Amino acid sequence: MQIAILGGTGREGRGLALRWAKAGHSIVLGSRDAERARSRAQELSSLGQGTIRGGDNVSATDGADAVLVSVPYPAHGDLLTELRQALDGRIIIDITVPLTPPKVREVHLPPGNAAALEAQAILGTGAHVAAALHHISSTHLADLGRPMEGDVLVSSDFDDARELTIGLVRDLGLRGLDAGALRNAVALEAMTSVLLHINKRYGVEGAGIRIAGVA
Amino acid sequence: MQIAILGGTGREGRGLALRWAKAGHSIVLGSRDAERARSRAQELSSLGQGTIRGGDNVSATDGADAVLVSVPYPAHGDLLTELRQALDGRIIIDITVPLTPPKVREVHLPPGNAAALEAQAILGTGAHVAAALHHISSTHLADLGRPMEGDVLVSSDFDDARELTIGLVRDLGLRGLDAGALRNAVALEAMTSVLLHINKRYGVEGAGIRIAGVA
Repeated sequence: MQIAILGGTGREGRGLALRWAKAGHSIVLGSRDAERARSRAQELSSLGQGTIRGGDNVSATDGADAVLVSVPYPAHGDLLTELRQALDGRIIIDITVPLTPPKVREVHLPPGNAAALEAQAILGTGAHVAAALHHISSTHLADLGRPMEGDVLVSSDFDDARELTIGLVRDLGLRGLDAGALRNAVALEAMTSVLLHINKRYGVEGAGIRIAGVA
Repeated sequence: MQIAILGGTGREGRGLALRWAKAGHSIVLGSRDAERARSRAQELSSLGQGTIRGGDNVSATDGADAVLVSVPYPAHGDLLTELRQALDGRIIIDITVPLTPPKVREVHLPPGNAAALEAQAILGTGAHVAAALHHISSTHLADLGRPMEGDVLVSSDFDDARELTIGLVRDLGLRGLDAGALRNAVALEAMTSVLLHINKRYGVEGAGIRIAGVA
């Protein structure tokens, strides 16, 4: 599968690109700065996990079976608005959490209640948005030797986006669970602040969520 | 400890009363219908787990070290407004989830974003509200022979309310974790709809949450 990672030069992008490349997918890192994306792609490709290319955000989406959005929340709305046309007809995996520094350990509801709901509203129903991967530590992702832990909750209003995302989560070595309608991204995004609080409060790094009672 | 359970004749009230009575606490079930509360208390007492009394909601709060609020969301605001005076100076454990039937498997944010935030706003800072126990199935609670599973996330703006609640959660045989400020009840309450979706989607009963990465 061809996967574009927008904001792909960030921390999450690194681990996702390497793990999906290793699983046999073709990865294109997108960035506002095409040169930076190409240079990062070259660096990651040299690790020998698989094919990773880079380019500007629009060209990165060319031919992508899935477009993962991994940008800081303040850049999220503008990026999607700019890419509206390029993203039409595509499956979008939105992993954005609307954190508001410095209070990242307290829930902050954005104007649309969830970044993923805002994405779907901006893009219209021609794009199929799934929200996922909010609770996976970027440090764990980037540490390829480390087995991943925790479940990934996936919410979407579209079956194709949900199923494709759950499959890609499996390729990361994690269990993806159907978490219902895209509205439920409100809970998934907000829970990230709870996990950040737990990390600090209990002196751990990368607390995650497991769903008990589902075999 | 003396624990009042308002709305104590409901499903959650039954299991909580029996498990806390068994742990040695003194329980008072409160209800709008004092006769119903007394009759339910007598029934539960007859199971021989410990002392359980009943009465109207106001008298149930007399001398309570903790007051648990377990009423359907549509009754929540009115009950707290009526009991404002009786609850002043007390620790409140609010387990309310603002579900809106028939769409209980989709997140619904109430006007104050969380029932527990609404409770704290109604009661003022003389009452110390903790939000907890949203993810524990009432069926599991009521089945005394069954070991409880899952973690209980506790959010509060007051240390005394948080610590007391975490202690009472331990007495149920569960791990209570500090989930941060009361604002974070937005995530805890909303996650309940995700769990209800998962129950239906995967054909299970009582899916819960475990926090991975915290020993």
